[in-house]
Amino acid sequence: MNGLMMEYHLTLDRILEHANHISPHKRITTLQPDGTLHRYTYADLYRRVKQLAKALVALGVQPGDRVGTFAWNNYQHLELYYAIPGAGAVCHTLNIRLFPEQLSYIVNHAADKVVFVEGSLLPLYERVADQITSVQHYILFNTPSDTQTRLPNVLFYEDLIESADEDFAWRSTDEQMAAGLCYTSGTTGEPKGALYSHRSMYLHALGAGQANALGVRETDVVLPVVPQFHAMAWGLPYACAASGADIVMPGLHLKPEPLAQLIEAERVTIAAGVPTIWTGLYHELKNNPRDISCIRALVVGGSAMPRALTKAYESELGVNVLHAWGMTEMSPLGTVCNLSSQHAGLSDEQKWDIKAKQGYPICGVEMRIVDELGQELPWDGRQMGELQVRGPWIIRQYFKRDISAESFTPDGWFRTGDVVTMSPDGYMQIMDRTKDLVKSGGEWISTVELENAIMAHPQVLEAAVIAIPDAKWQERPLAAVVLTPDAQALTSADITTFLEDKVARWWIPETMIFVDEIPKTSVGKFDKKVLRSRYAEGQLG
Amino acid sequence: MNGLMMEYHLTLDRILEHANHISPHKRITTLQPDGTLHRYTYADLYRRVKQLAKALVALGVQPGDRVGTFAWNNYQHLELYYAIPGAGAVCHTLNIRLFPEQLSYIVNHAADKVVFVEGSLLPLYERVADQITSVQHYILFNTPSDTQTRLPNVLFYEDLIESADEDFAWRSTDEQMAAGLCYTSGTTGEPKGALYSHRSMYLHALGAGQANALGVRETDVVLPVVPQFHAMAWGLPYACAASGADIVMPGLHLKPEPLAQLIEAERVTIAAGVPTIWTGLYHELKNNPRDISCIRALVVGGSAMPRALTKAYESELGVNVLHAWGMTEMSPLGTVCNLSSQHAGLSDEQKWDIKAKQGYPICGVEMRIVDELGQELPWDGRQMGELQVRGPWIIRQYFKRDISAESFTPDGWFRTGDVVTMSPDGYMQIMDRTKDLVKSGGEWISTVELENAIMAHPQVLEAAVIAIPDAKWQERPLAAVVLTPDAQALTSADITTFLEDKVARWWIPETMIFVDEIPKTSVGKFDKKVLRSRYAEGQLG
Repeated sequence: MNGLMMEYHLTLDRILEHANHISPHKRITTLQPDGTLHRYTYADLYRRVKQLAKALVALGVQPGDRVGTFAWNNYQHLELYYAIPGAGAVCHTLNIRLFPEQLSYIVNHAADKVVFVEGSLLPLYERVADQITSVQHYILFNTPSDTQTRLPNVLFYEDLIESADEDFAWRSTDEQMAAGLCYTSGTTGEPKGALYSHRSMYLHALGAGQANALGVRETDVVLPVVPQFHAMAWGLPYACAASGADIVMPGLHLKPEPLAQLIEAERVTIAAGVPTIWTGLYHELKNNPRDISCIRALVVGGSAMPRALTKAYESELGVNVLHAWGMTEMSPLGTVCNLSSQHAGLSDEQKWDIKAKQGYPICGVEMRIVDELGQELPWDGRQMGELQVRGPWIIRQYFKRDISAESFTPDGWFRTGDVVTMSPDGYMQIMDRTKDLVKSGGEWISTVELENAIMAHPQVLEAAVIAIPDAKWQERPLAAVVLTPDAQALTSADITTFLEDKVARWWIPETMIFVDEIPKTSVGKFDKKVLRSRYAEGQLG
Repeated sequence: MNGLMMEYHLTLDRILEHANHISPHKRITTLQPDGTLHRYTYADLYRRVKQLAKALVALGVQPGDRVGTFAWNNYQHLELYYAIPGAGAVCHTLNIRLFPEQLSYIVNHAADKVVFVEGSLLPLYERVADQITSVQHYILFNTPSDTQTRLPNVLFYEDLIESADEDFAWRSTDEQMAAGLCYTSGTTGEPKGALYSHRSMYLHALGAGQANALGVRETDVVLPVVPQFHAMAWGLPYACAASGADIVMPGLHLKPEPLAQLIEAERVTIAAGVPTIWTGLYHELKNNPRDISCIRALVVGGSAMPRALTKAYESELGVNVLHAWGMTEMSPLGTVCNLSSQHAGLSDEQKWDIKAKQGYPICGVEMRIVDELGQELPWDGRQMGELQVRGPWIIRQYFKRDISAESFTPDGWFRTGDVVTMSPDGYMQIMDRTKDLVKSGGEWISTVELENAIMAHPQVLEAAVIAIPDAKWQERPLAAVVLTPDAQALTSADITTFLEDKVARWWIPETMIFVDEIPKTSVGKFDKKVLRSRYAEGQLG
């Protein structure tokens, strides 16, 4: 027997309708390419989204069509987040940092019918234009209407919006309809697409909005530094609309100085980004102090936040750091690291130990860890296992790919590829990627833990550890280390000494390379594939 | 084209699994009939729920069967909240305050197959036992195993649990399955049942858990004074499990003194109940002061919280009051009255004006107001209209009843029967029930607003206003007034004078009746049906 509740589809247009009804006056602020601020309200957003959706339909966009975006974080990109799914189509956010061959692969694989390109990124996109086979229309924005381009069939964004009125009935009529598409940047193999549904994105917004998760409130001012082309900006735009929070978009201004200025001027309360962004911001603020204590949650994801950086933000800048973890395949939110009632009595140092973990799964995300034979492991905080996840905002399959054993278990869980520990109270800590682990003498060494230990040294800016072949031990760790600008002739012997009371002695790398920077992937993570190829045989490059 | 996300059913067992994984150590505390505290954890709850669900299946409970509960708020009742739906059956909470003929009607109408009865309520239930036709088993709890009863086929709760082990696979396999059943106490006509699904209750838990809604967190200690037989205790038990909050259950101890003691001793942070409970608690605390400032949200629903009482709690007791509004048909949460960013600069008095409203709809609940012709009205804070609602946790039909025009619009919205105003920023204020409005000289008088104005008098404990026939004006208001114990010879002329600068002069009732108490319905609301019959012609009773 079924319940007798309304058949109410969880579609993204309903989140926008909610914002327009309850928070029409709340503000969306964008730092534009020229450095000026564009401000408008959710009511403005709503009106333009309706026009844009109607114009897309008039342009020939059909339900299920993929519509690409190639843009920074701004109000136009936010409009596309609603207009494309509202027109029944799929918002395919293209990662502007991909290599050209990856970008053209993705546009063609998705068969994008329309692509929106931001003016400042036009040269970047034009490099691949000749390889693109599917696109029928390009729409340019944030660029003068006499912009010359090699792209065919070009329209201008404001013309498109003005071509339609607001009288439009949403075409997102079923919660199972595809709404968004993001490809993983994957350091190995071709990029793979996660095809989100309206339902999964709506549920993710409710999940993220829980007080026990990110807890976005009406009184918040949210700055997604995380790009909109990266897992839908961690779903923050939708969580903001669901709660009526103000949004601040940084546009292309991702350097520390303008970010610091924006945070201070707009009284940002929640800022979200990867650790490298916050590393840069921290050093900027040390040189040019500003008060950013308006931030009640500095959300960090994408890769692990070094404990030392968390400590620095909390103890020196008065900013609460909220470690989070997720994946493109998870929409992306999996865990958050709020402290729990049991941590109330801990010292600050003990709290930072907890905050270095990725946190507990939010309601809606199920987790388990398994050993190499697929046997489930206990949550004892010590045993490392592969993390597998399940939930309503996690993919069951990649777009246009078969379900592979590499990514999915026979009983339908997603294999994250992370090796983690789980504490008895559900706090997850990533120890490594399965493929990055160093297997030395039959034992595992967590490269992540080793990196964090090295980065705890005050004169180390960044450190990445990879496995190199070793005749005796099978594999040994190699550390690539970036020193801070003011570091004084630090040697590998100094680091070895520093590590001695922090990790097991056999973990300490014999080989340390001092480099100017660690190679990074398009989303800012350490690119260990590049490192491995560079130091394949352990030689010094 | 559909998204490629996991087909993950939103079922209540998954909320319990979450709590058992993440918060196994968190506490559930019950004030037992004998005044002692029973304490255990979510891990204990989980284990016993598994046993109980398995035992129910062994007893012959089939998917879709209705299983009744007749109990106060306690851990056993909480176990039933999960075990019955987890066994695939429907948890039908019976209102212990119903008249016997209503109770027997409901049990028979729902065709309950099994009913769980708490010992202290056994005499109450036995009164209707002869009228019950459907029940095959009664399970008694909180009562000695040699209890004598007229009920047939009696088992004892602990025996039932011990009869099964924990090895049980949840039978709640589809989110559309019915999970809960609550009948409205309805002051007119037969009670009507709201049949909740797993999906609606899961979504309600996520909705209520949003920071912008009730915002239950892991660090909270939640006291549902609202009965578990009243709209699933406003969904709080599920929201608590979703976030890992501690739960405190008051059992049958709903008098002000034990409640005050419980709140202080258990450091309750969220307490939820109807205004009459908080009126009593306030007067208790004035006589026997205790520190209850641990409460960060005193959630008030069921009927309107008088502004004066909100002010008293906030200014005298240091307790933040959170007005909320909902209906059994809405699972129940519709609105909450958190202050918004725009209220930051207001004075306390202005803030209490806002807090006297029912608040804004939470994400997931859509609202509109219409006039008598069904035309939608603007949200201008002035025009009164009938409130209609829509959303994933609102009923589309009553159990075993046709869809009536009285309750549902042709386009599928639920008619709340409330007359409200909506402010431009979405704050709803209930002006009256459609059937309670006084129509005087062609104009509407809001009885609720008039009652609040009278109750603002320091010597008035409660006031209820009804319409009485009037030869000249068609209808005029009559006020039934209860004075505080220490009131000194207050007259209707005093109240008239008091009202003169608070409401329009023509609103002031010519007829005021001083009574010892206002008749109440089974859920503690003013019973205007009784008042109307008592003062049908305006005579003084």
